[in-house]
Amino acid sequence: MHVADAPHLRVLRLLRDEGPVSRAELGDRLELTRPRLLAEVERLVAAGLIAEAGMAASRGGRRSTLVELDPRLRFAAVDLGASSIDIEVVNGRLEPVATYRETADIRSGPRTILHRVNELLHKARTDGAYEKLDAVGIGVPGPVSFRDGVPVSPPIMPGWDRYPVRELLAREHGCPAVVDNDVNIMAIGERHGGVAHSVDDFLFVKIGTGIGCGIHLGGTVYRGVDGCAGDIGHIQVDPNGPVCSCGNTGCLEALFSGSALARDAIAAARSGESPALAERLAAAMNAAENQDDDEQSEPAITITARDVADGAAEGDVTCIRLIREGGRRVGGVLATLVSFSNPSMIVIGGGLAQLGHVLLAEIRSVVYRRSLPLATGNLPVVLSELGSRAGVTGAAVLASDTAFEQAS
Amino acid sequence: MHVADAPHLRVLRLLRDEGPVSRAELGDRLELTRPRLLAEVERLVAAGLIAEAGMAASRGGRRSTLVELDPRLRFAAVDLGASSIDIEVVNGRLEPVATYRETADIRSGPRTILHRVNELLHKARTDGAYEKLDAVGIGVPGPVSFRDGVPVSPPIMPGWDRYPVRELLAREHGCPAVVDNDVNIMAIGERHGGVAHSVDDFLFVKIGTGIGCGIHLGGTVYRGVDGCAGDIGHIQVDPNGPVCSCGNTGCLEALFSGSALARDAIAAARSGESPALAERLAAAMNAAENQDDDEQSEPAITITARDVADGAAEGDVTCIRLIREGGRRVGGVLATLVSFSNPSMIVIGGGLAQLGHVLLAEIRSVVYRRSLPLATGNLPVVLSELGSRAGVTGAAVLASDTAFEQAS
Repeated sequence: MHVADAPHLRVLRLLRDEGPVSRAELGDRLELTRPRLLAEVERLVAAGLIAEAGMAASRGGRRSTLVELDPRLRFAAVDLGASSIDIEVVNGRLEPVATYRETADIRSGPRTILHRVNELLHKARTDGAYEKLDAVGIGVPGPVSFRDGVPVSPPIMPGWDRYPVRELLAREHGCPAVVDNDVNIMAIGERHGGVAHSVDDFLFVKIGTGIGCGIHLGGTVYRGVDGCAGDIGHIQVDPNGPVCSCGNTGCLEALFSGSALARDAIAAARSGESPALAERLAAAMNAAENQDDDEQSEPAITITARDVADGAAEGDVTCIRLIREGGRRVGGVLATLVSFSNPSMIVIGGGLAQLGHVLLAEIRSVVYRRSLPLATGNLPVVLSELGSRAGVTGAAVLASDTAFEQAS
Repeated sequence: MHVADAPHLRVLRLLRDEGPVSRAELGDRLELTRPRLLAEVERLVAAGLIAEAGMAASRGGRRSTLVELDPRLRFAAVDLGASSIDIEVVNGRLEPVATYRETADIRSGPRTILHRVNELLHKARTDGAYEKLDAVGIGVPGPVSFRDGVPVSPPIMPGWDRYPVRELLAREHGCPAVVDNDVNIMAIGERHGGVAHSVDDFLFVKIGTGIGCGIHLGGTVYRGVDGCAGDIGHIQVDPNGPVCSCGNTGCLEALFSGSALARDAIAAARSGESPALAERLAAAMNAAENQDDDEQSEPAITITARDVADGAAEGDVTCIRLIREGGRRVGGVLATLVSFSNPSMIVIGGGLAQLGHVLLAEIRSVVYRRSLPLATGNLPVVLSELGSRAGVTGAAVLASDTAFEQAS
C-alpha cells in the first residue's frame, strides 16, 4: 500500500509544474491545513528553494501572497547518446536557460566524455546561465544501477562498467546527481511535458541506433532488479535472421533499428531495387567526394532513416516496404509486451520515429491484431511529442526530484 | 516515493506470519514507540482482531505480555479453476481448519458455481469450522477488475463478464470480500509460503489447462490497467501453428498447455510413435469401457500430463520430445519477458509443473541463452513449492490483508 508523497515534495512539484501559486490556493490544492502549509513554506524559503512573488489577485478576503520556486534554482540535464551529448541548464520550472548539443562518441570512454560534459557545464556558468547548480541529472545509453548511480555492463559503452558517474558529477558540481538509462529519462520526459502527460502506465519505445523500452508502471519508472528492464533490443524475433552486434542471431535491433535500416537501404540503393534510395546514395557519395578529406572522421552512414522516410513519402515502394517490415517486427514484440503488461499507452520515440505514420500504422495493426482484445480496447499507440528533447527533459525532471527529495 | 504501511497493518501481518509475539518484541521489531504500540494494541484488541496470550519468557526486567491474532479469526479462501472448486477456511495464521475440493465446470455460470461455493462455506460453519467469517478471498480463471471486484471479458467463463462476485460474496457472508485472477493468487501464495518467500520481483508462470503469468513487482502484484496483465497464453509464437480457442493461430497455449499436450500425446499414442503412450491410451480406453455409462459426464481426456511425465521417466523418447518442445516454446516467451521486466526469480506452477525437471531444464536453457546476460546472471528458474495449494494460500493472504486494511 502506498501513501501520498511528503508535503514538501508536493509543494515543490506543484510550483515546478504550474508556476507561481498563492498560499491560499496551495493549501486548497494540497489539502494541507493552514498551520501545516505555513510551516512547510517557511522551511522551504529558509532552505532557498521557494520565494515570495508578490500578491495574488483577491479572492474576496485578504489578498494572499504568491509563492514560486526560487528564481535562482538551476538544474543541469545531460542526455548522452551513442554519438551525442545534449545538455540543458534549466530553471526551477525546467525551462532551458542554456542549451548545448554536440557529437561525441560514447566509446571514447567516461573520462573523455564526462570531462567534456563538465567543460560545457562550466562554460554555461561563465556564460551566466547559473551561479550554482542545485542538481545534475544524466542519462546514458545502457543499463544503470539507479541505486548506485553507475552504468552496469553497458554493451555499447566500453570502459563505463561501474564507473562512478554520479559520485564524480556530484563532487565536481557540489550538488546531488542522479544517473539513469537514456530510455528511462525519455519516458520520464514524455510523461512530464509530452504526449504521456499524467499517464501512469505506459511504454516508451525508443527506436534509434538501437531499440529500448522505458517502462512506467503505477506512476513510476520500473527499472528491474538489475536496472536492465526494458532492454528489448536483443529479443530474438527470427532465429534465421542476421547476426546482431551482441553475438546472437535475429535480435529485434539486428532486424530493425537505425543501423539495420541504413544497411538495408544501402543494399536496396546499390541493387537498384529502389530508385529513390539509389538517387540519394549517389548524391551522398558525390557530396562525400567533394568534402575536404583532411578530416579524420569515420565514413558517415550515407543513407539514413530520413532518406527512407522521404522516399516513402514520394511513393517509393521499397522504402514503404522497409518501413512496414520494420513496423511489423516491432509490432510483434510490442504485442507480446502488451499482453504481458497491459499498459494504457505506447509512445514511439527515437530517431526512427521520423518514419512517421507508415511505421505507426504498421505497429498499430500488428499490436491490435495480436494482443488480447481486452488489453487493446483503449490503447493509443502514438509518436513522441518531445522528439529529441525527451531525454534532456526527463533528466531535468529527475534532477529536480532529487534536489527536492534531499530538502526533507 | 513509497512509505511504510500503517502501523496496524504491520502489527497484524507480523502476528499472522510469525505467531504470538511479546509486546516488547513487537515494539522493537516494528520500531514503534511504547505509547504508540500500546495504543495500537488496545485498539486492535477492542476491534476483536488480536488477543492476549499469556506471558512471554523474561528478558531480564518485567515479563512482557504475549499478543496473538484473535483465535476466532477466520478467512475463507476460494480458488476456482476451469474444472474445480478449492476451498479452505483458515485461522488468523492462515492454517487450514477445513478443506473442500471438488470438480465443477466454470462454464456452468456464476449462479451455479457461487451457489455451490456458498453451500460449501455454510457446510463448513455447520461442521464447526467458524462462527463468523472475517473476509472471503476468491480467485477466478480469467481477467478481473480488482478495483470493481468483477471478472472482465473472461474468455473461458461464459456468463461471468462483470458479474458482481465480490458484492454477492460480501453480502452472503457479512464480511469484506476480494476477487482476483487465479494466477495472481497463486503468485501471492507462493510469495507467502513457498519458494518465492519474501522475493519482491518475480514471475509466477502457471502452465495448466491454459497458460498465465502472475507478475510481482516491487513487492506487490502488478495487474495492469484493465486487470489482464500477465495474460501470456495468447502470445503468438508460431504464425503457422495450430488454431487456438481464441480464434488466432499459433498462440503459446495452443502449442503447449494441458489441452495441447493431451492432443499431441493422443496423436503420438494412436500413430504408435510412442509405445509408452500407446500402452497408457489402451489402458485408459479399457477402463472407460468398463465404466458405468449412465454418467452424463463428457468423455474424459484419456491421456494427461501425468502419463507424459511417467513416459519420459521411463525413457520414452516421444514423451521427452513433447516436454522439451513445450519447454522451448515457454522458454522463448519467458526470454522476452525477462529481457523486458528483469525479475529476480521465475516460478513454474500449474498442472504441467509435474512434468518436472525435463521441462525446467529446457525452459532454463532457452531463457539463459536468449535473454540479456545481465538479466540472467542471478535468475533462478524453479518449480512451485505449494503446488495445487498455491491458489487457496494466496486467496487466504488476500482475504486477511483485506480484513486488516478495513480495520484502520
